[in-house]
Amino acid sequence: MGQLIVTHIRALTFDVFGTVVDWRGSILRECQRLSEVDGITTDWESFVDSWRYDGYIGGIQQVRSGEIPFQTTDSLHRLHLDKLLSERNISLTEERTNYLNQSWHRLDPWPDTIGGLHRLRNKFVVATLSNGNISLLANMAKHAGIPWDCLLSAEITGAFKPDPECYKKAALLLDCKPEEILMVAAHKGDLLAAAEVGFKTAFIPRPLEAGPNQKKDLIK
Amino acid sequence: MGQLIVTHIRALTFDVFGTVVDWRGSILRECQRLSEVDGITTDWESFVDSWRYDGYIGGIQQVRSGEIPFQTTDSLHRLHLDKLLSERNISLTEERTNYLNQSWHRLDPWPDTIGGLHRLRNKFVVATLSNGNISLLANMAKHAGIPWDCLLSAEITGAFKPDPECYKKAALLLDCKPEEILMVAAHKGDLLAAAEVGFKTAFIPRPLEAGPNQKKDLIK
Repeated sequence: MGQLIVTHIRALTFDVFGTVVDWRGSILRECQRLSEVDGITTDWESFVDSWRYDGYIGGIQQVRSGEIPFQTTDSLHRLHLDKLLSERNISLTEERTNYLNQSWHRLDPWPDTIGGLHRLRNKFVVATLSNGNISLLANMAKHAGIPWDCLLSAEITGAFKPDPECYKKAALLLDCKPEEILMVAAHKGDLLAAAEVGFKTAFIPRPLEAGPNQKKDLIK
Repeated sequence: MGQLIVTHIRALTFDVFGTVVDWRGSILRECQRLSEVDGITTDWESFVDSWRYDGYIGGIQQVRSGEIPFQTTDSLHRLHLDKLLSERNISLTEERTNYLNQSWHRLDPWPDTIGGLHRLRNKFVVATLSNGNISLLANMAKHAGIPWDCLLSAEITGAFKPDPECYKKAALLLDCKPEEILMVAAHKGDLLAAAEVGFKTAFIPRPLEAGPNQKKDLIK
């Protein structure tokens, strides 16, 4: 008979954008306020989707391939925001542009987030493991009342997910073996990369993350 | 007339050992339990003081001078604990030794800590800026119920306090100008080093930190 080895989970690391908070709904609401208050009209849905996917996800890929230097999420967001505003002939003051860029610090949680994390926190260390920078994660937690034990970020690990280094450094900082950590995410790529270095994984479907027409990451 | 420049404080960074938690009282209680449970007798006060000052503070100085490589607080604690146990002919199992080393993760807060931080947290980002490693700070916060927004540590900044790099990297991670941060500590050396890079400073006297015979760091 084989030997049964039971490893206890000691820490949960959470993906944040999409898994813990509803980035698309939150950013869309902030943008739509620009229409209401300033009378700016544009297709905000395609604006927000491009900001996220072309700007942020694309930016991370450019960093990972060495095209552009490592930089914070705030910086990647701002690069693409300036491009989008210019392409659509939207003119904002520096103060308003900066405020809009910081809307990623004010994302709202999904309805089950806060209660769920409070319950999980009684048993485990609950940490972020996000590509978002530390000040963004700290401001977001304050805004939304998210009870993290610890903020871990690509800004600290020195590598964006899904780079294996990001997960390995997180385990080191938590002083856990990889198999003592459960990576929680709504994105299969994140979970597969975490599993590759030995983390346990939990998939949370977020069928509305990418809006009503989402096709990806719905089924485990 | 000169120009009046008002800078608002946005974040408070706290020294932890001695400022937020009573390391000496807490460790002494854990050690004294070894006498009660295992009948081990030694002068625990000098044991604890040597662990802190020769082991930990001395260890940080050795790292800063390049004598030994950069390592975590847990590792520095363990190095000196092994030395102390051996010098005093105290024999513990590996499990007990490790548990004793982890007593630095279970420090109790001063009576004003929790209430004070909850109040300050309504207005400011409250973060650790400690030489203690991340898992130690996370476990301690859980043990004591300390409501941090963010854990910053020499393990993340890559340099122990009072190295200027430690404070500079902390400001970068908080996305604050140095003058937007208030360093809070019971130790003048920490505050002077923080002020040197532009932080504002707040001194909290902890007259019992080093025990009843403390002479240092009592007056601003």
